[in-house]
Amino acid sequence: MVSRQQYRDGMSRFAAAVHIVTTDGPAGSTGFTASAACSVTDDPPTLLVCLNRMSLLHSIFLENGVFCLNTLAGDQREFSESFAHRSEMTMKERFALPEWGRAESGSPDLRDALVRFDCRIVDAKEVGTHWVIFGEVQNIRFAHSKSALLYASRSYHKLSLSRSNQE
Amino acid sequence: MVSRQQYRDGMSRFAAAVHIVTTDGPAGSTGFTASAACSVTDDPPTLLVCLNRMSLLHSIFLENGVFCLNTLAGDQREFSESFAHRSEMTMKERFALPEWGRAESGSPDLRDALVRFDCRIVDAKEVGTHWVIFGEVQNIRFAHSKSALLYASRSYHKLSLSRSNQE
Repeated sequence: MVSRQQYRDGMSRFAAAVHIVTTDGPAGSTGFTASAACSVTDDPPTLLVCLNRMSLLHSIFLENGVFCLNTLAGDQREFSESFAHRSEMTMKERFALPEWGRAESGSPDLRDALVRFDCRIVDAKEVGTHWVIFGEVQNIRFAHSKSALLYASRSYHKLSLSRSNQE
Repeated sequence: MVSRQQYRDGMSRFAAAVHIVTTDGPAGSTGFTASAACSVTDDPPTLLVCLNRMSLLHSIFLENGVFCLNTLAGDQREFSESFAHRSEMTMKERFALPEWGRAESGSPDLRDALVRFDCRIVDAKEVGTHWVIFGEVQNIRFAHSKSALLYASRSYHKLSLSRSNQE
């Protein structure tokens, strides 16, 4: 088996979109920055996101039973950094900023995110240090941004979605 | 709930790295193009990949018990297209091309892929039309490419991993 450091070095080459995953409900509101997320199936529309058990956030997500996956646009790096680290602001204060609205599930949604997937948690599975949380997509909203925020080689990158950048 | 088409439109904005997932063993050799994959945990180093049940490939992967996730470099679009569609070449013929070697598990590995994760299948879960397959990473190899192949907005993109493209 490879070491944790070898694995991290390998994963650093695996480019990924960046998301803020949020929830609100009886257990309170919270959010975190995620790049470990992907589509599972379109029938029924279902995606997954991985969440560290050590963060203790999983109990809030699982009790609320809902989350919103906010996929960041190229100019939204500040949100990724804000939700990846501790802040002097409470979650309630952060979500009260004008950039945030509410998805139908009640989860905070970032108005200018490239796309927002409002989900109901339908399953969850423990794997090592993490939870894999499966969400059935209830609503989708788009913004008009033309670029996506990517994380690769331990840096942020802006990917233009226009035709001129096509391979 | 959203329609399949709405979900596909939403997912088209979710930029993702492109991989060829391969296997070889008692059940034979095969491979497919995937963008639904992500890291799960570094302890023990584990990643996941989603596979359509309709393709019937899952039985080959599950019986072999191993796979290699070959993350494509920016100039490897031809492999993505080749493994996403039917070909006149058999899998055996494709993997005999000089671009392919063998990972320690026996799964075909693409020599110039950005990174290759050689995995042992440790779990699998059915979700709707798909299998989610969990692989514990046994070996990792790198190539020297400086760009990654991305799929977003229903097009391929080349993401430069050099510092000049940083956000």
